[in-house]
Amino acid sequence: MTLAPVLARLDAGLDDALDRLMALLRIPSISTDPVFKAECDAAADWLVADLQGIGFEASKRPTPGHPMVVAHGGEGAPHLLFYGHYDVQPVDPLELWDNDPFAPAIEDTPKGKVIRGRGTSDDKGQLMTFIEAMRAWVAEHGALPCRITIFLEGEEESGSPSLVPFMKENAEELKADLAMICDTTLFDAKVPAITTQLRGLMAEEVILTGPTRDLHSGMYGGLARNPIHVLAKIVADLHDDTGRITLDGFYDGVPELPDEIRAQWQGLAFDHTRFLGDVGLSQPAGEADRTPLEKLWSRPTAEVNGIWGGYTGAGFKTVLPSKATAKISFRLVGDQDPEAIHKAFVRHVEDRLPEDVTAEFPNGHGAPASRMPTDDPAFEAARQALSEEWGMEAAFVGSGGSIPIAGHFQQVLGMNAMLIGFGRDDDQIHSPNEKYNLESFHKGMRSWARILAALAK
Amino acid sequence: MTLAPVLARLDAGLDDALDRLMALLRIPSISTDPVFKAECDAAADWLVADLQGIGFEASKRPTPGHPMVVAHGGEGAPHLLFYGHYDVQPVDPLELWDNDPFAPAIEDTPKGKVIRGRGTSDDKGQLMTFIEAMRAWVAEHGALPCRITIFLEGEEESGSPSLVPFMKENAEELKADLAMICDTTLFDAKVPAITTQLRGLMAEEVILTGPTRDLHSGMYGGLARNPIHVLAKIVADLHDDTGRITLDGFYDGVPELPDEIRAQWQGLAFDHTRFLGDVGLSQPAGEADRTPLEKLWSRPTAEVNGIWGGYTGAGFKTVLPSKATAKISFRLVGDQDPEAIHKAFVRHVEDRLPEDVTAEFPNGHGAPASRMPTDDPAFEAARQALSEEWGMEAAFVGSGGSIPIAGHFQQVLGMNAMLIGFGRDDDQIHSPNEKYNLESFHKGMRSWARILAALAK
Repeated sequence: MTLAPVLARLDAGLDDALDRLMALLRIPSISTDPVFKAECDAAADWLVADLQGIGFEASKRPTPGHPMVVAHGGEGAPHLLFYGHYDVQPVDPLELWDNDPFAPAIEDTPKGKVIRGRGTSDDKGQLMTFIEAMRAWVAEHGALPCRITIFLEGEEESGSPSLVPFMKENAEELKADLAMICDTTLFDAKVPAITTQLRGLMAEEVILTGPTRDLHSGMYGGLARNPIHVLAKIVADLHDDTGRITLDGFYDGVPELPDEIRAQWQGLAFDHTRFLGDVGLSQPAGEADRTPLEKLWSRPTAEVNGIWGGYTGAGFKTVLPSKATAKISFRLVGDQDPEAIHKAFVRHVEDRLPEDVTAEFPNGHGAPASRMPTDDPAFEAARQALSEEWGMEAAFVGSGGSIPIAGHFQQVLGMNAMLIGFGRDDDQIHSPNEKYNLESFHKGMRSWARILAALAK
Repeated sequence: MTLAPVLARLDAGLDDALDRLMALLRIPSISTDPVFKAECDAAADWLVADLQGIGFEASKRPTPGHPMVVAHGGEGAPHLLFYGHYDVQPVDPLELWDNDPFAPAIEDTPKGKVIRGRGTSDDKGQLMTFIEAMRAWVAEHGALPCRITIFLEGEEESGSPSLVPFMKENAEELKADLAMICDTTLFDAKVPAITTQLRGLMAEEVILTGPTRDLHSGMYGGLARNPIHVLAKIVADLHDDTGRITLDGFYDGVPELPDEIRAQWQGLAFDHTRFLGDVGLSQPAGEADRTPLEKLWSRPTAEVNGIWGGYTGAGFKTVLPSKATAKISFRLVGDQDPEAIHKAFVRHVEDRLPEDVTAEFPNGHGAPASRMPTDDPAFEAARQALSEEWGMEAAFVGSGGSIPIAGHFQQVLGMNAMLIGFGRDDDQIHSPNEKYNLESFHKGMRSWARILAALAK
């Protein structure tokens, strides 16, 4: 089964592939907001139908949250499992979008054509690169190049609560030789990458309660405890003056970077001034004694993702609020244990609670960091296939983001994962005006066709 | 002109007076939110019509914001000016109200009958006590007991931006011998009070901007500056470990309490344990070396009234936000200068801004503290009238709240103000389920009738 006609078919069918992607993008499958439950379901239905059209045995599988999509097809070694997610991030602040986030469109930009809309890069555009490669392969050769399982979830943007239980219950069905995950970026606009180390995550909300109700700050101010002040102190104390995180034992299990990886990263043309300049910043924050790439790929972090309390409307309301809340997430590396970090965070908060203020921790969840075996020959084969498609040597890189699924595949199914994606740093995922370059979509499909040809025996 | 038949008429007409109050309460005149502009206007119209019905020459007077209501009536000394405000606080969080805040009703409670609804205590219920006393006096005697000007504003809950300009433009018309302000509380459920010292206020919003857009905390976390962390540090640093406020020069002009006032306050049966216990607290916060009444009445404060940034919806969104905002107010005492405090606050923020974070201060406004001459015989006459109505010795007290109008009357019109109100500490003004005791309304009307009889010559 030859590769060239598959690539030609992908080139010729680009417009049809885009039409399919647009249909999927128009479904507002925001998983974190219960209002969009039916839309998450609709996205799963759409994918089941599309995979069945290619010849997969596909089904929607219920969970306590949003459904999984599981599909089986092909024969022969290796058995590859492909993972992606059909859910997307919320779209607020909506007023910062130039267009309806769920009315995707192709735009000309100074950096080439892009597909604009929520989910274009994270992750609908990416997952469709794999599905389109499958479709072209079957159309050309009448069968898939090897045994392939497709596994798509709908809760990636909301902490994946159903993922591990589902994997455990269906371990026999899902276990393959190697997983392929398409939810990462190119190293830069020209250099493709396989992500081989990923930060983990521990996320929690902390809700402080002081007085039983909001008080008039004139009548009570100076005598009654203000929970916003307590929360500010808790947040301010998360880092010391050098940018180090202060939780007890936080750095337990954080490895120093091996010399060979440090050398390889120093060889990468990472321009942190440009990277920060693109978002209006000029100075690296964080740990004072670490390089920018270390901070992003191999150092743990603590970031407040949201904070609120008291009166937040127009004008003034001189209230002394009853409650103050923050959403906080920690990016983890090496062998940092999410449960230990959670405990240390709870202690950090409780140590700073004055009498009369109580704390609740309703939402803790996490996943450890993970690292892939770059000496596995499949990794090198895939790296060469990527290099051929892009005309540039592909890199093994780290990622600051957390894709907990990679760790779960290792821990639950004993299977390594190859993280290959075609997003760019400026895709504005999780932000208004998310986009995916048309080149990413087109060369992404072609990349998967090449990788399958390289891996199928 | 005798007092007794006026009091009898107020008793007999209580139900009709309540009907009028309910009609005014049903108008949602929230001044801080532009959505309710027409409702503020409607409340002013209602009051003009009601005052005209009593025989006042009353009119609605335009301002760049919500209108003033000015009315003139009566002859003879002294010339009294009565002030109240027809605007009310916002009602959020609406879900914490047991009933529609603008569908007022009488409720039986363990502490007696109350009128429940937004504005019942702050300030519509209070201002109507004065108007009802006028109505009864005119009905009984055919004329007011002395020359009376009524001056009602609609921006008290939103910083009174039009007040001083309007007073300056209409100084001749508004200047009287003495102002009467009904916007304060009883000392406790049984002891009436005249408030003779009031804290001032300086309120400001601070908006921090870091990155130009919200970022993915995985992709940027550890390298990009998070403005929530910067804001938390700014808020945490407002107070030192002893509860003192750290702004440079903040305590300039803060007087120590005179010994005689300290002695009088020590004689008041203020139970801070009960006061705090009513709102679920047990420990005094704030300056460690001050008594509870000092903290509330004669010490300055810094309170964050609202804070927000990043993702505040359901679920998690691992965003590193572009902006973080806080609304902060300072209660001022003695000769503290609001403009100097504003400058010191701006410096406090700017000293804590790392490179790459900018701050905006869009909303600063303030008023100094004020103190009334308790040796003026009119104050003693009013105190005795109050004592007779309530059957308990009335007290000269301080107030933690800021009623900037009292200072403006002194500074712009050279006129002292007598602050007499009938609210209670548990009225939940500025909170859900605001109420005003029926006894406050009834004895309030009677109190004004007595005070007018005592002051009219």
